[in-house]
Amino acid sequence: MIEGISPLDEEAMAAARALHARLTKPAGSLGALEELSVRLAGLAGQCPPPLPEPAAVAVFAGDHGVHAQGVTPWPQEVTGQMVANFLAGGAVVNAFARQIGASVTVVDVGVLDDLGEGPGLVAAKVRAGTRDLTVEPALTRDEVSAALEAGARVAFRLVDEGARALVTGDMGIANTTPAAALIAAFTGGGAEAATGRGTGIDDDRYARKVAVVRAALEAHAPDPADPVGVLAAVGGLEHAALAGFILGGASRRVPVILDGVIAVSAALAAAALAPDAVGAMVAGHRSAEPGATLALAHLGLTPLIDLGLRLGEGTGAVLAVPIVASAVRVLHEVATFDSAGVSEK
Amino acid sequence: MIEGISPLDEEAMAAARALHARLTKPAGSLGALEELSVRLAGLAGQCPPPLPEPAAVAVFAGDHGVHAQGVTPWPQEVTGQMVANFLAGGAVVNAFARQIGASVTVVDVGVLDDLGEGPGLVAAKVRAGTRDLTVEPALTRDEVSAALEAGARVAFRLVDEGARALVTGDMGIANTTPAAALIAAFTGGGAEAATGRGTGIDDDRYARKVAVVRAALEAHAPDPADPVGVLAAVGGLEHAALAGFILGGASRRVPVILDGVIAVSAALAAAALAPDAVGAMVAGHRSAEPGATLALAHLGLTPLIDLGLRLGEGTGAVLAVPIVASAVRVLHEVATFDSAGVSEK
Repeated sequence: MIEGISPLDEEAMAAARALHARLTKPAGSLGALEELSVRLAGLAGQCPPPLPEPAAVAVFAGDHGVHAQGVTPWPQEVTGQMVANFLAGGAVVNAFARQIGASVTVVDVGVLDDLGEGPGLVAAKVRAGTRDLTVEPALTRDEVSAALEAGARVAFRLVDEGARALVTGDMGIANTTPAAALIAAFTGGGAEAATGRGTGIDDDRYARKVAVVRAALEAHAPDPADPVGVLAAVGGLEHAALAGFILGGASRRVPVILDGVIAVSAALAAAALAPDAVGAMVAGHRSAEPGATLALAHLGLTPLIDLGLRLGEGTGAVLAVPIVASAVRVLHEVATFDSAGVSEK
Repeated sequence: MIEGISPLDEEAMAAARALHARLTKPAGSLGALEELSVRLAGLAGQCPPPLPEPAAVAVFAGDHGVHAQGVTPWPQEVTGQMVANFLAGGAVVNAFARQIGASVTVVDVGVLDDLGEGPGLVAAKVRAGTRDLTVEPALTRDEVSAALEAGARVAFRLVDEGARALVTGDMGIANTTPAAALIAAFTGGGAEAATGRGTGIDDDRYARKVAVVRAALEAHAPDPADPVGVLAAVGGLEHAALAGFILGGASRRVPVILDGVIAVSAALAAAALAPDAVGAMVAGHRSAEPGATLALAHLGLTPLIDLGLRLGEGTGAVLAVPIVASAVRVLHEVATFDSAGVSEK
């Protein structure tokens, strides 16, 4: 799969740039949307690229052994309870997905509770939560591989079922702690710079969280040139599955709209495994978590939305989907100066 | 109409804040969308407020006597040609509106060309273009009043036809020049700070444009306490009509999604006429034009999208509509901790 991820098609990108210059608008007047549409032409290898609809959200859920270190005030059982909420359609990501006509698939890659099976739930549990990364590596390399494969399989299935955009979602109480460690490891940013307040923790708990991330980095000394090793040492099952999901989308040349800090930490792993996968990534939004900004800068991605969201679940990315669709629609539907009989300057 | 524009309903806003605290998400985790949804509850006087759908875009078109001063390289005939492009569905605003299922109505309040009548076109020409504001006032007070009324009538009609959000659009070659003068007059910002490069003019033309704005402000000394006088001295017919459109929406308690620099210059006039109208305004995006940032700060509005767009037509505002709808949808559809059986921290 990774070997099948190739660079953007320069010819299709040149065609999209040339088309933009003929459309009835001043050159460059659509700002960041012009380059986005050009990039999606390069990803699809055709101009105009297909509209990114329907979009499919996959919410990868997992628990975290590091919860034992008191990095969050939320009880661990909330992960499984929120999975039930997603399946009942009652979470924010469900409301946002209904707004844009996107499906929501929940993937259990590592929830502690036994969730059974049900409509909308993919049972792909690699293990019931990670190990405590302050004590030992969170995962084995084999477990990371299994999660990567589970994520890629979800991407393939959704694309086979007709999705033309994949949207990253996540749920996992304490999962901003491994995300911070992954971001620190892949970007070289320090523990403090990469660590945020997650659901909104107080100063004492924040200091504890930074200390946990710092200790994990010192204990495992993860090597960014070995992304599977980094995910095993300080990652999470939903982070690894999201990396596989991104790679799966990239290998099928379908845009992957990234949500917040969990998604971009997984995207760093995906980019380390297959640098050309960045061509398929669209930064849906800038999470309020500081690590997200570090990761986006490392990936060279500019977010479409920046509204201080820090919920996760895929919410920020879902909001961005109509913007991505609008950017592509311009290349399909807007008249040229010639065809519309509009004078040029 | 202006006397009917009243403050936001504090009781509905308090109800929305209380509801947010019970929904299955960490407090504050939806960032700017939470306060937006609270404000829309206050506008509607009920919690949850109605979804802002369907949305209706009104593109107000006019020409400008100041075109004679060489402030833009685009020929004046492009205003009428673009109106034809809107009516044929070939402009960017049409493509964006189709993405979200919004209607597009074009209103001729001051185009030089005789556009006749046709489906989707409202014939409300006050005069064929403004006078050159460097030579004399652009409009008479009566012409400003007629344009304000034309804009309000369009708002009333669209709301009567079922629109639950109004979206400001504009077309008028040279219309960033009066917008800059309006913004300088209402905010007290200088001519240079308020003036941008519009469609993308070069340094020489930019210097000329700043000089034109400065000369107009010096010649007319518009008084911000007399908004009709300011619009008459240095405004445009689409700017005045947009101010009326905003006031019309505010008087009907329907959110008005503001586009770029033309819209926010009109919003300053609307706010000067009826300060409570700001409660109905939603800043769709931040235009690349520097005057837009000055005006948004003066109005106390934070834009939802900031992607370097500088096209006008309503394009940036249309992109924001699904975000506004998503913010409102949360109050309608998201489960509470109690109803979903999710533990709290």
